[in-house]
Amino acid sequence: MEDWRAAVEADLDRLLGSDGDDPGRLREAMRYAVLGGGKRLRPIMTFAACVAAGGDWPAARPAAAAVELLHAYTLVHDDLPAMDNDLVRRGKPTVHVAFGHAEAILVGDALLTAAFGALAPLGPRAGDAVAVLARRAGVAELLGGQARDISGAKPDSLEALERLHAGKTGALFAAAAELGAVCAGADEELRGRLARFGMAYGIAFQHVDDRDDGDHPALAAGAGQRIVELGAEMDRLLAPLGEQAAALRALAQRLR
Amino acid sequence: MEDWRAAVEADLDRLLGSDGDDPGRLREAMRYAVLGGGKRLRPIMTFAACVAAGGDWPAARPAAAAVELLHAYTLVHDDLPAMDNDLVRRGKPTVHVAFGHAEAILVGDALLTAAFGALAPLGPRAGDAVAVLARRAGVAELLGGQARDISGAKPDSLEALERLHAGKTGALFAAAAELGAVCAGADEELRGRLARFGMAYGIAFQHVDDRDDGDHPALAAGAGQRIVELGAEMDRLLAPLGEQAAALRALAQRLR
Repeated sequence: MEDWRAAVEADLDRLLGSDGDDPGRLREAMRYAVLGGGKRLRPIMTFAACVAAGGDWPAARPAAAAVELLHAYTLVHDDLPAMDNDLVRRGKPTVHVAFGHAEAILVGDALLTAAFGALAPLGPRAGDAVAVLARRAGVAELLGGQARDISGAKPDSLEALERLHAGKTGALFAAAAELGAVCAGADEELRGRLARFGMAYGIAFQHVDDRDDGDHPALAAGAGQRIVELGAEMDRLLAPLGEQAAALRALAQRLR
Repeated sequence: MEDWRAAVEADLDRLLGSDGDDPGRLREAMRYAVLGGGKRLRPIMTFAACVAAGGDWPAARPAAAAVELLHAYTLVHDDLPAMDNDLVRRGKPTVHVAFGHAEAILVGDALLTAAFGALAPLGPRAGDAVAVLARRAGVAELLGGQARDISGAKPDSLEALERLHAGKTGALFAAAAELGAVCAGADEELRGRLARFGMAYGIAFQHVDDRDDGDHPALAAGAGQRIVELGAEMDRLLAPLGEQAAALRALAQRLR
């Protein structure tokens, strides 16, 4: 996985090239938001899914960069004063604090635009890839989840909590996994299987995060049970893929 | 052109379908921002460029919808309190006034996401189309222009004014025209020619707009001269295309 991480770092650095003039320091702020931090879990999911689907991992490089750029945009816009008004991320001032409020809106817009642009080199597979990313990152999933989150209503059931997790976290992991499959030239069945894996991973990831942070204590017992169930579901989804799915299995193992 | 306008209205209505639940009223706000208003100049440019490049206009429907969705996103984010803080657009409260500040950020994000998603049905041409739209709408052009604009420095020369116009208005018209060419399967030379036409149109459009609004009076004489020069440039760019370029010529004629 270190090779994958290095590949995506190099691709992000290249895509966020600092040549050209830089009105409003947008380019500088994009690099600040994306480079030098982050576990790159979503790109790693994309590479692992590509391999699980029988592809060569470098075929997934455009998609891996795209999901990380998209993730970075969600963080920049989430942190805005009108949203969560977060002042610090990964130990550094957030983009709107460091570069200005209007600039941070534009930086998020630019990262989202760059995310789709990163898919263009997929050539004949670009149409499918764009469709996957737009659907998962759009109003039906990711942005609908954000809208639900800012409404401020606390989820009052495990179902409501998982709906929130599915939108805010699951959607992008599902996209990451399905994009890996698209880059491998997988058929519909396999694309759907890996997308469901990504969704289960994302929801479990968020339950584990809640557990570690002590969030939603009233729902913690049910969520703990769901971590086990989602782990079993991930195992089941990967079972037919054999050794090719070893990297995805390793990702899932860490969420126990 | 009425057929083209009707086609893009129908496509926008379909793409912004109101089925599914609507947390935060994002879907409702997207429809509010896009439907029932607007001259649809950018989609018309896309259709006209497709025909000028020898294509059948319906081939450009995905791209026409994409440029209008992208235009709508720029308006929603431009109007935000941290940007221009506009309260009224086309005689109606702006999205952040009608739906809330955080919601308006998400609505713009959702429209930008939907713009790229709209290109997916282009299939083998989707990759080229995504590359064109991401480059023109990204930090190098449109968003760089926005960043320059919010810096608040008044352009002190005709060159500085045109750089602003090129980013804020020219970039998206250039994308609209080049996307029409991409949908027609045009070669590099013709794509470039139509992109230059779109850029000249966008800059002239903004000079005419300034003239009508009395903006930038100190630069008005030079800008008036530039409207004439850009008109001649547009004529020259279209000359080799003959009758196929009639609709583009009609668009250019209106900017005298």
